[in-house]
Amino acid sequence: MERVINFSAGPSVLPVSVLEQASKELVNFGNSGMSVMEMSHRSAVYQSIIDETEADARKLLDIPDNYKVLFLQGGASMQFAMVPMNLMVEKKKIDIIDTGAWTTKAIKEAKLFGEVNVLASSKDKTYSYIPDYKNLTFNDDVDYFHMVSNNTIYGTEYKDLPKVNVPIVCDMSSNIMSKPINVSDYGVIFAGAQKNLGPAGVTLVIIREDLVGNAPASVPTMLNYKTHVDKGSMFNTPPTYGIYVAGLVFKWLLGLGGLKAIDQINEEKSKVLYDYLDNSDLFRGNVEKKDRSRMNITFVTGDEEIDKKFIAQAASAGFVNLKGHRSVGGMRASIYNAMPLESVKKLVEFMKNFEMANK
Amino acid sequence: MERVINFSAGPSVLPVSVLEQASKELVNFGNSGMSVMEMSHRSAVYQSIIDETEADARKLLDIPDNYKVLFLQGGASMQFAMVPMNLMVEKKKIDIIDTGAWTTKAIKEAKLFGEVNVLASSKDKTYSYIPDYKNLTFNDDVDYFHMVSNNTIYGTEYKDLPKVNVPIVCDMSSNIMSKPINVSDYGVIFAGAQKNLGPAGVTLVIIREDLVGNAPASVPTMLNYKTHVDKGSMFNTPPTYGIYVAGLVFKWLLGLGGLKAIDQINEEKSKVLYDYLDNSDLFRGNVEKKDRSRMNITFVTGDEEIDKKFIAQAASAGFVNLKGHRSVGGMRASIYNAMPLESVKKLVEFMKNFEMANK
Repeated sequence: MERVINFSAGPSVLPVSVLEQASKELVNFGNSGMSVMEMSHRSAVYQSIIDETEADARKLLDIPDNYKVLFLQGGASMQFAMVPMNLMVEKKKIDIIDTGAWTTKAIKEAKLFGEVNVLASSKDKTYSYIPDYKNLTFNDDVDYFHMVSNNTIYGTEYKDLPKVNVPIVCDMSSNIMSKPINVSDYGVIFAGAQKNLGPAGVTLVIIREDLVGNAPASVPTMLNYKTHVDKGSMFNTPPTYGIYVAGLVFKWLLGLGGLKAIDQINEEKSKVLYDYLDNSDLFRGNVEKKDRSRMNITFVTGDEEIDKKFIAQAASAGFVNLKGHRSVGGMRASIYNAMPLESVKKLVEFMKNFEMANK
Repeated sequence: MERVINFSAGPSVLPVSVLEQASKELVNFGNSGMSVMEMSHRSAVYQSIIDETEADARKLLDIPDNYKVLFLQGGASMQFAMVPMNLMVEKKKIDIIDTGAWTTKAIKEAKLFGEVNVLASSKDKTYSYIPDYKNLTFNDDVDYFHMVSNNTIYGTEYKDLPKVNVPIVCDMSSNIMSKPINVSDYGVIFAGAQKNLGPAGVTLVIIREDLVGNAPASVPTMLNYKTHVDKGSMFNTPPTYGIYVAGLVFKWLLGLGGLKAIDQINEEKSKVLYDYLDNSDLFRGNVEKKDRSRMNITFVTGDEEIDKKFIAQAASAGFVNLKGHRSVGGMRASIYNAMPLESVKKLVEFMKNFEMANK
């Protein structure tokens, strides 16, 4: 069985070279005489793996020294509670822009800890755009502003950052490390690993150090960022193997030339598909052009039967997981960092042939 | 580099056959055309992996139908908070027996949610025994009784269960699946995977269904067992790859003959080492004989310099991670399910030679 071209929204495609290296050293890593899975997290050999993974993340994202890097568990869903537990402590109010399922969940959790101002929402059009944040009035008497930089389900992505006077908390799960960012613009960045970073089960958190240590005493130890900052993500056993694989992905990214290089590749990849969609008589993109995601490209034919036929024929041809999320319908091609340009070109070729056969 | 004999307390040795299979199918699993790490958790192929893993756990532990099986994240440390958040809700009191570091941490978290009765403690002798629970008076007006079945750091293990009239919550992280148990004796069993079940980053929770759904509305979604029960551990992306490896370990255990078979092997393995310790003039076990763990065997020479020399020489000979926890000192051989009898015999042989050379 050959490898398929996997457009899954997450967990999602990983670089083949990373998988091959992981496979090669799975039973016996380097000179350790054991699998990374079998290593004590307190051992020197594992410490060097996590240290290098953190150092490479810092290099890739150019993370300033006053930001802490944590490898946690529980995904973005756990961060939806952990962030307000730690940060929604002074004003007990936050601002948020509702861009779909992931802000909806974040709103629900934050409401357990205070008042949530939903400043704008694109719910009226099935979240097919990012609300105009340039003309919004943000509040200054809030603990932070929460946003989701890329919306996996709908295929929208912020192209720049709103100007606010409070810390920005950004759920970057589905476009982290897809381009250079200025970490100093943020208070907290968090991301589940399973899209651009590695296997599910690792959560990357980047937090400005003055935002650590303000949680009330009622917050459980494991849900206090300070616990993990003080112990270098080793208060308890971290997801050791997932962190190791994320480290391999970081090395792969560095080898490509870092985030500037992957930014260009992602631009080209998404352009190939959007250009085709914009010129197709059969397919069209779901999202307002200005807000289009480079990671998750959603599209439809306008005819559910033809959508189904396309998804089935594509799967038979080795293009799998192209079905859109049930709340949007149609198709979605998730083309994260690890999706090669060549594979996107092959998809477009397939779509062209399908269009010819179905016009 | 050959594989070493790894006595790590956790993460710890895994069956070589499991690692070899994981390595073989890491890049391309079965007929899927992708790595398990790349699979959507919503895909049919991944659903069959998690379903089979749960079914095998149920088979191994003979889990009754009125118990739910969950694969969560955060380890036992997260359960120390999650259990009281969900169960310490009516009387807001619990009973606990203090057997060391892991009960100490559980006590700290539970105190955030109510009153904790520490019925007995073995702290007076560095937790080198299990307090006499046969003659204790347990309370009936508590929500549950919390215990740790095996104490990794000190090398103690409960040989049977206290008789109590409330649900027993058992942290079974370091001896789960080392022998048959009667799941019906418990309200909640939880275990970090990284000792007997698989890689770090997966937490197995087995919970009686009437204990699910009683959490107050203030509990965040991710910390409510009901969330995960309702969605079959798929409310959010689970640690997909770790669950798959745990599934391979479960198949390996079933292939050996299940928990009855591994129970006999564990009995024999620990007997080989304890018999030698009881007859050695150089080494002696730390723990009261009646409370000795079959998983973590702690011992000393009584001379810190000789301990150090032993640990160093053993490491050179390929017996690694034998250093005891800093709070106990001396040596610790963790011989979980995946540690072969042959390896324990080799260690004893090495110890005999060391004793001869150092008397």
